[in-house]
Amino acid sequence: MRTIELGQPLEDGMPCSPSHPGFRMALLRRHGDRVNASGGSGANELIVTGGHVGTHLDALCHAAIDGRMHGGVDAHTASVGGRFTAHGVDTVAPFLCRGVLADIPKLLGVPRLEPGFGITAEHLREAFGKLAPGKGDVALVRTGWPQLYHDPDAYIGHTTGVPGITADAANYLADTGIRAVCSDTIATDQILPGRGHAALPAHGILLVERGVHIMEVLTFEELAATGARELLYLAVPLRITGATGSPIRPLALIHRGHADAE
Amino acid sequence: MRTIELGQPLEDGMPCSPSHPGFRMALLRRHGDRVNASGGSGANELIVTGGHVGTHLDALCHAAIDGRMHGGVDAHTASVGGRFTAHGVDTVAPFLCRGVLADIPKLLGVPRLEPGFGITAEHLREAFGKLAPGKGDVALVRTGWPQLYHDPDAYIGHTTGVPGITADAANYLADTGIRAVCSDTIATDQILPGRGHAALPAHGILLVERGVHIMEVLTFEELAATGARELLYLAVPLRITGATGSPIRPLALIHRGHADAE
Amino acid sequence: MRTIELGQPLEDGMPCSPSHPGFRMALLRRHGDRVNASGGSGANELIVTGGHVGTHLDALCHAAIDGRMHGGVDAHTASVGGRFTAHGVDTVAPFLCRGVLADIPKLLGVPRLEPGFGITAEHLREAFGKLAPGKGDVALVRTGWPQLYHDPDAYIGHTTGVPGITADAANYLADTGIRAVCSDTIATDQILPGRGHAALPAHGILLVERGVHIMEVLTFEELAATGARELLYLAVPLRITGATGSPIRPLALIHRGHADAE
Amino acid sequence: MRTIELGQPLEDGMPCSPSHPGFRMALLRRHGDRVNASGGSGANELIVTGGHVGTHLDALCHAAIDGRMHGGVDAHTASVGGRFTAHGVDTVAPFLCRGVLADIPKLLGVPRLEPGFGITAEHLREAFGKLAPGKGDVALVRTGWPQLYHDPDAYIGHTTGVPGITADAANYLADTGIRAVCSDTIATDQILPGRGHAALPAHGILLVERGVHIMEVLTFEELAATGARELLYLAVPLRITGATGSPIRPLALIHRGHADAE
Repeated sequence: MRTIELGQPLEDGMPCSPSHPGFRMALLRRHGDRVNASGGSGANELIVTGGHVGTHLDALCHAAIDGRMHGGVDAHTASVGGRFTAHGVDTVAPFLCRGVLADIPKLLGVPRLEPGFGITAEHLREAFGKLAPGKGDVALVRTGWPQLYHDPDAYIGHTTGVPGITADAANYLADTGIRAVCSDTIATDQILPGRGHAALPAHGILLVERGVHIMEVLTFEELAATGARELLYLAVPLRITGATGSPIRPLALIHRGHADAE
Repeated sequence: MRTIELGQPLEDGMPCSPSHPGFRMALLRRHGDRVNASGGSGANELIVTGGHVGTHLDALCHAAIDGRMHGGVDAHTASVGGRFTAHGVDTVAPFLCRGVLADIPKLLGVPRLEPGFGITAEHLREAFGKLAPGKGDVALVRTGWPQLYHDPDAYIGHTTGVPGITADAANYLADTGIRAVCSDTIATDQILPGRGHAALPAHGILLVERGVHIMEVLTFEELAATGARELLYLAVPLRITGATGSPIRPLALIHRGHADAE
Repeated sequence: MRTIELGQPLEDGMPCSPSHPGFRMALLRRHGDRVNASGGSGANELIVTGGHVGTHLDALCHAAIDGRMHGGVDAHTASVGGRFTAHGVDTVAPFLCRGVLADIPKLLGVPRLEPGFGITAEHLREAFGKLAPGKGDVALVRTGWPQLYHDPDAYIGHTTGVPGITADAANYLADTGIRAVCSDTIATDQILPGRGHAALPAHGILLVERGVHIMEVLTFEELAATGARELLYLAVPLRITGATGSPIRPLALIHRGHADAE
Repeated sequence: MRTIELGQPLEDGMPCSPSHPGFRMALLRRHGDRVNASGGSGANELIVTGGHVGTHLDALCHAAIDGRMHGGVDAHTASVGGRFTAHGVDTVAPFLCRGVLADIPKLLGVPRLEPGFGITAEHLREAFGKLAPGKGDVALVRTGWPQLYHDPDAYIGHTTGVPGITADAANYLADTGIRAVCSDTIATDQILPGRGHAALPAHGILLVERGVHIMEVLTFEELAATGARELLYLAVPLRITGATGSPIRPLALIHRGHADAE
């Protein structure tokens, strides 16, 4: 088996949605700051982050429509106490399941999708072909957007837009029975140029209406280059009690010497 | 396969070593704080933590002796820039390997070890029996200490002590070729009553001399109850660039209906 | 004029109520981490704190009774949006006014008050004597408790208790027309041994019923030693929009060569 | 006396130099989260900030040249232990002194200075006129830049530049014997378009060579409108042990009914 990293490193200066607090890490103690009698020293750090920073998972409690979360749970009541008592990220089981890649740039013969491009159910059906995702699987939707990760403004695309799934694509994905949609953008949703990140219909459909998790800011560039489209997907969100999201370090396990099976 | 959680939830009020910043999570936005035109809302959080808080992994750069980290790397130079350029947690490959449990309380016929108890190489050899850990494996050393997790003062044992491995046990473990020692205490090391957490010889041996990682604040109570002693161990530290540690959510995968094989 | 510090330094390891996040400061960049072409470098830090940590001011929105803040303002509604839209610390004018010290240990002929001691209206009247506080002034109530500041457990007194003002003392103080009560303990309220910090009646009277601010964790040891009982009081809370408290560095300005005037 | 605010509120979304961690405040507990038996509740917050965020003071240890801070102190040695043992913000006495305003836009007959404009010693001399600052005073240098505070990109001027004092102006100011230069920009220094904030010669001159503090991100718009040019200046940095900066809330006290005296 070959292990492929599907996430980005956590570090200062990463692209970060203006809706969320950014990531900062500062060394609290460096070696030399305090040395014990036998010459030993320990270094450590202070970390500040949001739950939706870097490669992360959205818990179902992240989103509500008209004050209701998935299953009709009252969103206000569930947050009384300062942490969610329903649909928190601590309730999410580890992902250790089949994953299927929909490589949309490959389908369309482009290196990456255009800003604001809408990925439809039809695109996904075609990209999956015979390898459709099923119950308990995760779907990996590639846009090629990590090619812009070094340029946070372009990657976030607040004014310029970001490619992503449309509402009908979200419904199609939920219909397959998957546990989660994994995307290589910061929004998963299609972001039209000039609109910003305020309206995210696919988030509402997946997290609220259908109970499907979302993982964001992954990268499928290395995976896509192998030609593999089926994989063992591994992601273990932290059990942060009552939080709406968690950083993750997702992995793909594929057979060595893999060549596209179709 | 059955999946068993080996970690503790991340939340306010967890036991936390006074050497490290504690964990805090505050909801930044609750549903109702800001609602968009179509009734949608997003909740999120601000998280403050250390890299050695809750269930976590110690990167090799966490420890130094006489200003040198593992392999003789200069500990000061490696931290210039404000994050470690060598032996950082971002360099640690995911753990997806064989794990072997040394159940010391079971060996000794007690529910849990006494405060300050020293686990020796001999204890470990006896507890492993024929199932000794080998190259690339991880060793899980059970003390039963998570039974005190609800009482942070007792669990941390700053004045009362904590059971843990002695220097010779650390060397024995490193000799087996394992990648990491996983412990169910906050210190892994034997902490004698009245000594505090300042001197941690097993940390020096494992992290600096032998290049063996340490994972701490795990729990083996549920695992031990199954009787399983061999398992598939899964832990994926976050790739926090240049950090000395990372929270983890470790898992054991065992065969359903497992009974002690020996 | 002589300037006397009435506050404590902000630093790791300060006494901190378990109800609030503690203070942590980590250097993000040290000199040498990044040096520009002309040899210049800048050091800076990452700070995590609560609004009620170290010497601080309680804004009126810090407290509510039966869901109402001062003036009957609905406490829930005022916090929608994630920061208080009424009675936040940003609405508090700077304090640059007369202050009057009630030196209770001096009155009682003891170095400091006993744990759990209740300061009554009668004690205050006697201690003020002819120098009663009036409209727009602040009252400084000395217990001598900063003598224990180096011992956080004793200072916080979670199990052992803390001296402080009773409900009738709070009402008496509010009747004088003062803007704020300044205390040298972490709770201002009388904390009976074994009760913890959950019930704080003087907080309710001052912040909710009477609209009088509270400043806490001051020290009057140096001031008391001068014999001065009237002073110019200076405290400038930060304008943190919608926060419930702010760190302060309060000062007393007294005439040089002051001797007790009474 | 009339009190005029010279600072900006501390809140999410403030202009913040990319060199420093931004400000975030999240309510940890809102009223209703936890209510005690008698109906009382307390709200509080978690705050993350840098020492150079919003209106703030630069301590002398913020800057070094060739590894030396003011007075030749070794900059590395002084930071060992994780907080500065020399020239930290905790060593800065409160400012309660004469302030003199140099209103450069008024001098030049413009509403505000152009991006990248250099304020010279000659400009300052002319603007001060007979009211030159002297020993122990602070100098307030107005650019009118707070008119752009609502537009963080323009205010910070990373690519477009910011008006500020030249090296010779910094030397002239230090020659007057002042304790601090107060500016209404984020950099104090002249920032030429396209240069970014990396080279700040006036910072080196003031903080390192001359031992003069800098306060930044103030606003003199209201003060300037009164016509007052002499004032009582009040700023009390927090005593954060070993920090390189502190948020401040500076105030000007002027005579009511003030008209420009010259």
